[in-house]
Amino acid sequence: MFEFTLTARAGRARTGRFRTPHGDLVTPVFAPVGTQAAVKTLTPAQVADLGATLVLANTYHLYLRPGDELIGEMGGLHEFMQWPGPILTDSGGFQVFSLADSRKIDDDGVTFKSHIDGSTHRFTPEKAIQIQENLGADIIMAFDECSDPNDHAYTKIAMERTHRWAERCLAAKTRPDQALFGIVQGGVNPDLRAQSARFIASLDTPGIAIGGLSVGETKAEMHAMLDVTLPLLPEDKPRYLMGVGTPEDLINGVARGVDIFDCVLPTRLARHHAAFSPEGRLNLMNAVYARDKRPIDETCDCYTCRTFTRAYLRHLIAAKESLAGTLLSIHNLRALIRLMETLRAAIQDGSFESRVPEWLKQWQGNAERKGG
Amino acid sequence: MFEFTLTARAGRARTGRFRTPHGDLVTPVFAPVGTQAAVKTLTPAQVADLGATLVLANTYHLYLRPGDELIGEMGGLHEFMQWPGPILTDSGGFQVFSLADSRKIDDDGVTFKSHIDGSTHRFTPEKAIQIQENLGADIIMAFDECSDPNDHAYTKIAMERTHRWAERCLAAKTRPDQALFGIVQGGVNPDLRAQSARFIASLDTPGIAIGGLSVGETKAEMHAMLDVTLPLLPEDKPRYLMGVGTPEDLINGVARGVDIFDCVLPTRLARHHAAFSPEGRLNLMNAVYARDKRPIDETCDCYTCRTFTRAYLRHLIAAKESLAGTLLSIHNLRALIRLMETLRAAIQDGSFESRVPEWLKQWQGNAERKGG
Repeated sequence: MFEFTLTARAGRARTGRFRTPHGDLVTPVFAPVGTQAAVKTLTPAQVADLGATLVLANTYHLYLRPGDELIGEMGGLHEFMQWPGPILTDSGGFQVFSLADSRKIDDDGVTFKSHIDGSTHRFTPEKAIQIQENLGADIIMAFDECSDPNDHAYTKIAMERTHRWAERCLAAKTRPDQALFGIVQGGVNPDLRAQSARFIASLDTPGIAIGGLSVGETKAEMHAMLDVTLPLLPEDKPRYLMGVGTPEDLINGVARGVDIFDCVLPTRLARHHAAFSPEGRLNLMNAVYARDKRPIDETCDCYTCRTFTRAYLRHLIAAKESLAGTLLSIHNLRALIRLMETLRAAIQDGSFESRVPEWLKQWQGNAERKGG
Repeated sequence: MFEFTLTARAGRARTGRFRTPHGDLVTPVFAPVGTQAAVKTLTPAQVADLGATLVLANTYHLYLRPGDELIGEMGGLHEFMQWPGPILTDSGGFQVFSLADSRKIDDDGVTFKSHIDGSTHRFTPEKAIQIQENLGADIIMAFDECSDPNDHAYTKIAMERTHRWAERCLAAKTRPDQALFGIVQGGVNPDLRAQSARFIASLDTPGIAIGGLSVGETKAEMHAMLDVTLPLLPEDKPRYLMGVGTPEDLINGVARGVDIFDCVLPTRLARHHAAFSPEGRLNLMNAVYARDKRPIDETCDCYTCRTFTRAYLRHLIAAKESLAGTLLSIHNLRALIRLMETLRAAIQDGSFESRVPEWLKQWQGNAERKGG
């Protein structure tokens, strides 16, 4: 179980196949996020139609509601949300540490208040594993502390705690059908990143996650941290860059050797009327689209682009029909999944390295809004 | 065009086939409502998967937003919303007269204020036809006045105006590819209903609508009005009972000879966490469903019932995931469409009349909430 086979390389980029109890993941792969055991506005059938293979769910949210024990009783996440393919859960760390004023960290764990009802809860590495074993995802994460990248002194403390917690998670883990990934931290400090990469790589885990990026640092800093971290990781384990990203981030990440990505951006943008396109990010609420008979992206093969005009999407948004969010989610997710298909094919056929500049140029406008 | 062929009878109930430019309607049929050119929360692909054949859209709403001229420029409603099958538009009368304090009626038409921005507009019979010709539905409605059923004196005035307006609509109509239906009014007064039925039946239209019911009268009054009206209508034209209804209403309507129904109830209930079931109407927000592994209805063949537990649906509702509305809309619409399939099959095989009591008993709890 959890065998990872590299199938092609292009510079530091690579394609591979990661075996999980719920099917093989062809990498590099982008995972839609189903925070609360649902990819927002989409049925699992619609998610599968996008070509998605891996779906992410959030430990913190599901622990609070409906509860990991309830999901366990219902047969686990796959059965509960009816996603037959691989599932990845985060450890809850990122959400808990984002609670800022309503959490207290010590070396043993974190006490925090629920964002739903203010009730008090405590996560430890052992508890994070227990919750994730109840949820039953194929890929689970060690409990980590993601700290402010600009606080260098504290970053070291948080990184060292993350390492101790990774060892405790590994010791606490009991299910053989789940792959635990340790998480590299170290903020934007190259020395700490290198130290963390070596430590996490030394643990006996089937894969490695890179956390604490896309949390406020610059793109140059993110790339520098990837350039430090990835060469220190073993070739024969998949690397997961957590919570990233934009189309440009995916291209830059794959070029540096990342295998797995997830991000809420495509579905979040969809709820804010924005769509990825080769023209740049479109704000479809804009009146310029009222009579625009073109699809969002003429080159896109998604249901939305094959079926609807920008004029119709703009009408749905103006009329506050939630179907707009569904149709834009379909497009934005498919755009990233299709991009990954393109990158994989290019790694396989040897054209990857020469095409990176073209892809970066094609997608560059999608970090910013355009036409709105 | 618009040929109506009866294919079987059972008492006053009948099955038929109504030819339209966008395909044949097998009747009796229930039409999902797409008020703003979208069946709420569902893609046209999902609506088609329910077995829906006819979809309704609202003239008042589409006139205001995005505008009937815009939809006309975009190629008409079928092209705009990408519903390839038959579409029916109402005349806007019901919505305009519902505006109560912000409309003024005279014999020529109605002046009203938009619910969106308060701007002033005017509908006349000719304008209602012009808008519906821009929208381009297969079946369109004469402009009518739907009055308070308890104000008998005024009901007569409104009915007579409705008759004059029906003649004006017929004279104003220019498109041969649209079937105009006149609308029978008369409130809950049997004499007025009979007079209206005779008048509307005398017009040269391919079908007849029955308006002004399900607007506050009792079920007994609705049934009495159908019992007066339907026997006075020609057998060879389809009869459309506007804005009705519940599962019980469909059974009672079909038994009295109605061919076409529409109602927002299934999608509206879905947004309020309620689901039709043989156990009665379920409120899936109820905590009793938190660990319920059953589907909403074990006998239902919809995607939701084939795929998800009540526990999952309850979680989606509690977590405020809009996917809950999508999944309940799928179930509630399929429940009514499947009921119509059952009724049609029974009319065809001769078992209809003997089974009416069983169906009414099976669905009776769905007028009221249960388990919540």
